[in-house]
Amino acid sequence: MTDATAFVPGHVTGFFTVNRDEDPTKAGSRGAGVTLADGVTVRLEPGDGVELNGETCDLEAVARVLDALRSTAHVVVETDLPLSAGFGVSGAAALGTALAADAVFDHGLSENELVTVAHGADIQAETGLGDVVAQARGGFPVRLEPGAPAHGVLDGIPATREVEYLARGQLGTEEVISGDTDAITEAGRQALSALVAEPTLETFMHASREFARETGLLTPEVRETVQAVAEAGGEASMAMLGESVFALDTGLSDAGYDAERCAVSLAGAHLR
Amino acid sequence: MTDATAFVPGHVTGFFTVNRDEDPTKAGSRGAGVTLADGVTVRLEPGDGVELNGETCDLEAVARVLDALRSTAHVVVETDLPLSAGFGVSGAAALGTALAADAVFDHGLSENELVTVAHGADIQAETGLGDVVAQARGGFPVRLEPGAPAHGVLDGIPATREVEYLARGQLGTEEVISGDTDAITEAGRQALSALVAEPTLETFMHASREFARETGLLTPEVRETVQAVAEAGGEASMAMLGESVFALDTGLSDAGYDAERCAVSLAGAHLR
Repeated sequence: MTDATAFVPGHVTGFFTVNRDEDPTKAGSRGAGVTLADGVTVRLEPGDGVELNGETCDLEAVARVLDALRSTAHVVVETDLPLSAGFGVSGAAALGTALAADAVFDHGLSENELVTVAHGADIQAETGLGDVVAQARGGFPVRLEPGAPAHGVLDGIPATREVEYLARGQLGTEEVISGDTDAITEAGRQALSALVAEPTLETFMHASREFARETGLLTPEVRETVQAVAEAGGEASMAMLGESVFALDTGLSDAGYDAERCAVSLAGAHLR
Repeated sequence: MTDATAFVPGHVTGFFTVNRDEDPTKAGSRGAGVTLADGVTVRLEPGDGVELNGETCDLEAVARVLDALRSTAHVVVETDLPLSAGFGVSGAAALGTALAADAVFDHGLSENELVTVAHGADIQAETGLGDVVAQARGGFPVRLEPGAPAHGVLDGIPATREVEYLARGQLGTEEVISGDTDAITEAGRQALSALVAEPTLETFMHASREFARETGLLTPEVRETVQAVAEAGGEASMAMLGESVFALDTGLSDAGYDAERCAVSLAGAHLR
């Protein structure tokens, strides 16, 4: 086999709903977020096992993608994004694996088919609900309907901006999305309804903050940081699902934080 | 008003169908093509009138977009792409105008809504059938169902490649798509069916050449160039609708032509 490398942008969700379904191509979430030029590279080499930033690692979503594509490879995942902190690294690793495996093994699948495989793997591993479809698209993705391409419907907020982010701790996606999610889904539905009425960044940030407060997902540390950004005249909210903050422009550094800065990803996931 | 600038990739269609409908959001085409990192920038300034590469110009699709958005502006369109040669400059100008107008006038529309306005304008001006939805997406877009986002369905060929192109003459989109298009649509349907069965670049190029031959759209000059590329071991076909040739990698220069080279556009249309 030859090598292949894919790049997948990071993805931060501002608000979301939980849409369960026995069919993983129909399961997922509505919501909205931002894709980051900081992302994940995935390289497939001969061998087996998964390596994340140089260490052997168990990434269930990646294993599920290889299994679905009946492929065996050594998967090298590299990222500067914070782990388990709401940046969609799991979904990115799954999608990058699907793209690279298609190239290496000549599976001859379309982009929608590869996104479907990776989305299903992320759902079944309970590591993400809507990262994969957003990461395949780029920009500021709005998930109007949940699910893989055959069922999901995407739109976008027309904007190009710099963003900043800061991880303050870890939060497991699985614990939240496997519990009672009715209140989350109701708050997510209201946030999406406000954003659809006026799909601007201002509405997105405002709706995201409301969602974080109403669902009780906002942690004290994140609340303090978001408030500090607002007091410095900026716009920030919580990265779902992680104990992390994201802000427009230089919102975090203006408030005195030592944050990472990057552009919104104009491109979706792609082979290199 | 403040200024705003949008960038829209060029788009070459390899094959297509003609799907007429009284509703311009349902009209369009099925088919497949490649978006180019060489594209069109559109800047909106105070004033009125349209300027293309420094000269006053009548671009009906641009006028229709401004009209639909009830906006008045001086539209400055700049591109290095060949004009009336199958590179989707008209659709790009329309889509760039929609994105920039939304930013300048705070219309608060979503990306799908702006794509819909530009698609409708390109259809009604009879300058394009599927360029706008492809240019909004980037990559190698496959148009599975015709129309604007509410009706159209897109997929993509998972590949990242360099391409070359060469304009050999001009060809009017309007004359071809306003005539009898049954044979074109039947050939386009067959080409799409082959590509869906195996969505690879090899199938795309092969299906595009078959389409160009079967429809009789292939001109003697283009045929000669495509053959010369094949004899040099490359892959080329005709850019629909223009008297132009596009090739994978360095296919045209390997065959001795002085062609433009650029990457496939990873990003879709976006504000700058």
